Amino acid sequence: MNFKIVIKILGLFLIFISLTTIFSILWSLHYGEFEVAMSFGYTILVGLISGIIMYLIGRKSDKESFYRKEGLAVVTFGWTISALLGALPFYFSGEIPSFVDAFFETMSGFTTTGATILTDIEILPKGLLFWRSFTHWLGGMGIIVLFVAILPAMGIGGKFMYKMEVPGVTKKGFTPRIKDTAIRLWLIYLILSLAEVISLMFCKMSFFDSLCHTFGTLATGGFSTKNASIGFYNSPLIEGIILIFMIFAGINFYLFYLTFQGKIKEVFSNPEIKVYLGIIFIVTLLITINVYSEGIYSNIYNALRYSVFQVCSIQTTTGYGTADFDLWPPLSRFLLVTLMLIGGSTGSTGGAMKVYRVIVIAKVSISQIFKFIRPRRIISIRIGKEVVPGESLDTILGFFVLYILILVFGGMFVSSMGVDLITSFTSVIATLVNIGPGLGRIGASQNYAFFPPIVKLFLSFCMLLGRLELFTVLVFFVPDFWKK
Amino acid sequence: MNFKIVIKILGLFLIFISLTTIFSILWSLHYGEFEVAMSFGYTILVGLISGIIMYLIGRKSDKESFYRKEGLAVVTFGWTISALLGALPFYFSGEIPSFVDAFFETMSGFTTTGATILTDIEILPKGLLFWRSFTHWLGGMGIIVLFVAILPAMGIGGKFMYKMEVPGVTKKGFTPRIKDTAIRLWLIYLILSLAEVISLMFCKMSFFDSLCHTFGTLATGGFSTKNASIGFYNSPLIEGIILIFMIFAGINFYLFYLTFQGKIKEVFSNPEIKVYLGIIFIVTLLITINVYSEGIYSNIYNALRYSVFQVCSIQTTTGYGTADFDLWPPLSRFLLVTLMLIGGSTGSTGGAMKVYRVIVIAKVSISQIFKFIRPRRIISIRIGKEVVPGESLDTILGFFVLYILILVFGGMFVSSMGVDLITSFTSVIATLVNIGPGLGRIGASQNYAFFPPIVKLFLSFCMLLGRLELFTVLVFFVPDFWKK
Repeated sequence: MNFKIVIKILGLFLIFISLTTIFSILWSLHYGEFEVAMSFGYTILVGLISGIIMYLIGRKSDKESFYRKEGLAVVTFGWTISALLGALPFYFSGEIPSFVDAFFETMSGFTTTGATILTDIEILPKGLLFWRSFTHWLGGMGIIVLFVAILPAMGIGGKFMYKMEVPGVTKKGFTPRIKDTAIRLWLIYLILSLAEVISLMFCKMSFFDSLCHTFGTLATGGFSTKNASIGFYNSPLIEGIILIFMIFAGINFYLFYLTFQGKIKEVFSNPEIKVYLGIIFIVTLLITINVYSEGIYSNIYNALRYSVFQVCSIQTTTGYGTADFDLWPPLSRFLLVTLMLIGGSTGSTGGAMKVYRVIVIAKVSISQIFKFIRPRRIISIRIGKEVVPGESLDTILGFFVLYILILVFGGMFVSSMGVDLITSFTSVIATLVNIGPGLGRIGASQNYAFFPPIVKLFLSFCMLLGRLELFTVLVFFVPDFWKK
Repeated sequence: MNFKIVIKILGLFLIFISLTTIFSILWSLHYGEFEVAMSFGYTILVGLISGIIMYLIGRKSDKESFYRKEGLAVVTFGWTISALLGALPFYFSGEIPSFVDAFFETMSGFTTTGATILTDIEILPKGLLFWRSFTHWLGGMGIIVLFVAILPAMGIGGKFMYKMEVPGVTKKGFTPRIKDTAIRLWLIYLILSLAEVISLMFCKMSFFDSLCHTFGTLATGGFSTKNASIGFYNSPLIEGIILIFMIFAGINFYLFYLTFQGKIKEVFSNPEIKVYLGIIFIVTLLITINVYSEGIYSNIYNALRYSVFQVCSIQTTTGYGTADFDLWPPLSRFLLVTLMLIGGSTGSTGGAMKVYRVIVIAKVSISQIFKFIRPRRIISIRIGKEVVPGESLDTILGFFVLYILILVFGGMFVSSMGVDLITSFTSVIATLVNIGPGLGRIGASQNYAFFPPIVKLFLSFCMLLGRLELFTVLVFFVPDFWKK
């Protein structure tokens, strides 16, 4: 591996991340939180100094030899140092006294998980609240993608890193030039964000809260500025707006690009979006019936209202809440946990396995039943009109098996700390799929504060694993990777 | 499909199953339970009459056209009618007044699950207790295999049905003639059974109880004649004997054949047995430490004694108990549930996914990490010295995915009846893997009595699915199967 170039790019990246805190400083100053502004100042200082040192170390690197391994290192370590640097304002300000906690919170932010160790969010200074939500927004569309969009073209490495970071399987579309693609993705993201901020402000939400909730929605993050999350507002209109933008955030962004180009027909012939919306529809229906018939809500309107919001929030792995679904009947909770694992569409900001992979996995397993009837038949897996090549099938199946193995071994590790089964299992699910809330002690109205530091670090690792879709992180644990 | 020949063979099969109840009649008469003997008599009457009618219907069938589909039908429906007929003695005697309950109990017996709807086993008449355990023994090595061994050669169909019924992936070994293989398998089974009965009788267990517990052990069933299961005896010697035979039952029976032939070296170079014993060793160690350090047992000897028994009982999917593991700490319970899913070796009487498949699945997923580092590399999966062909890989992965999907959707269905999450989820696991006890309301000291009839039927179906390894049963739900 060409370490020098990796260090150089990571140095530049540190400088870049430091500068993204400037907006938070402005909010701190606006609200007269000078100490918080200072803690951001110190963070910038740390970021700039270490960034410049790293840049200087890697200065004389061979620019040409930037390949797959170097790309993987920049993405994985870029995300890790983002969370390390991003944790500093919380730590320096003394608002989160434990660095492990601050790291967990920031990793949860960047990876758009939305799991929190804070027991009272509302007492946090505004500057930090903003930073917390802003990390969602940066991470949602991909910090490396943004970096690539802004920095001069990075050739093969840039394209590869873009592939690593944008979630999902099929990354076709847009233009052949990676920089243009990155810019267009961020442009769509920006337009949607503006639309949501304006919509929320029309509902008399403050500018600050509108911004923060927009970040949480479009990045499918889930951090709120209120302890009761979106439930605080108790407004069907606000819920409706956030609902629509959550659904948007779980759609492949390439489809928005097609929409802007007027290719509506192409959008609606996309097989993934049909299944995605279909799942939302069916599960909402089932849960509405379930919670209504079990008497959780006294009228069908409320049952539907709370069901649809929770379903969309969980299916897109956002994690915003208007109801404590951990108090719902077993079927509803079972359905919600299953939704968590499915997640958003490929190429969206949503987490988990992605709808596309789930369709492929289901088709592969059913095809084996057909094959069992007539063993000599050759069956190809199609999604829409396209045949999924054998290599992709292997990767998707391998991904699925790894996902399950991580859930099992991760759950074992958390349970070894004496944590009950449901909490252990769903804590790994909730962090791996980047949603945030789980069941039991990490239910919708709970938080992650009680976990021992080692579990917090492990769950932070799960968030990273999930956000970068396993392989990008796991390669570093294979000795083969380090061989020349 | 050639329905006539299927009906004819199923008719013969019904007659065969009826006759297997004769031993139970002898026990009934021995204990003076004349009413129970009568209920067996009625069962034989029903079996013989319907068997003869079916034979006559299919009498003029075309003997030659017995292929894959016909084989699948005989296996799946053969098992179903075995459970239907086998349920009659419980029902006729009035000991199990609900037919659904009696069906559940018998399906649990034949599939070697060992899940029970009885709240007090010890009050059951001896004849029925014997029949209950005897169904384990018949199902363990395969009722169809036994039928094939006894009946005149059945050509291609017999071989195919043997493949369908003996659990696991690799079914090589023995002789090319299927009838000889079936006879040898049953001979080994018989020798091991004799050895266990004699060993248990040496420990002063009664002949009756020794027989029943041997059936439960070697079939990896788990039905006991005591409410407290093996814990009743509180004897390290009895536990030790059952432990050893449980471990035996989870080993590929072909390896015993090799042992009898003196090919010990070949046995110990088998990769599956190494992993199988390795898992038992490691998990026993982890659980011993866990239960000891959590203070469940006051000394390390007891911690080891109860851990090793429970681990072997669960890994082999037997389900015998000497301790209520549902009271153990979360890590131990998590490990045990994971063991349930792994199960015994291929070609053993143990259930679940089988060690061989788990090795393949783990290797496939890890190979994808390697592939991610160098996408152009071609990686072949080896078990020992043999390369697993691509087609087998697809089948195994498809099997794994189907297993997980059935667990998820099955768990959802059970939870829709208002059953708590842990009980719902583990009830589907416990029946699908053919072990019996789960966690929560179906924990080691609990039973399945409280489930509504529809859930009992569903779980009976899961037992059949698990015992016949999914595909053999699932094909009947594919419209494609019914096409000409």
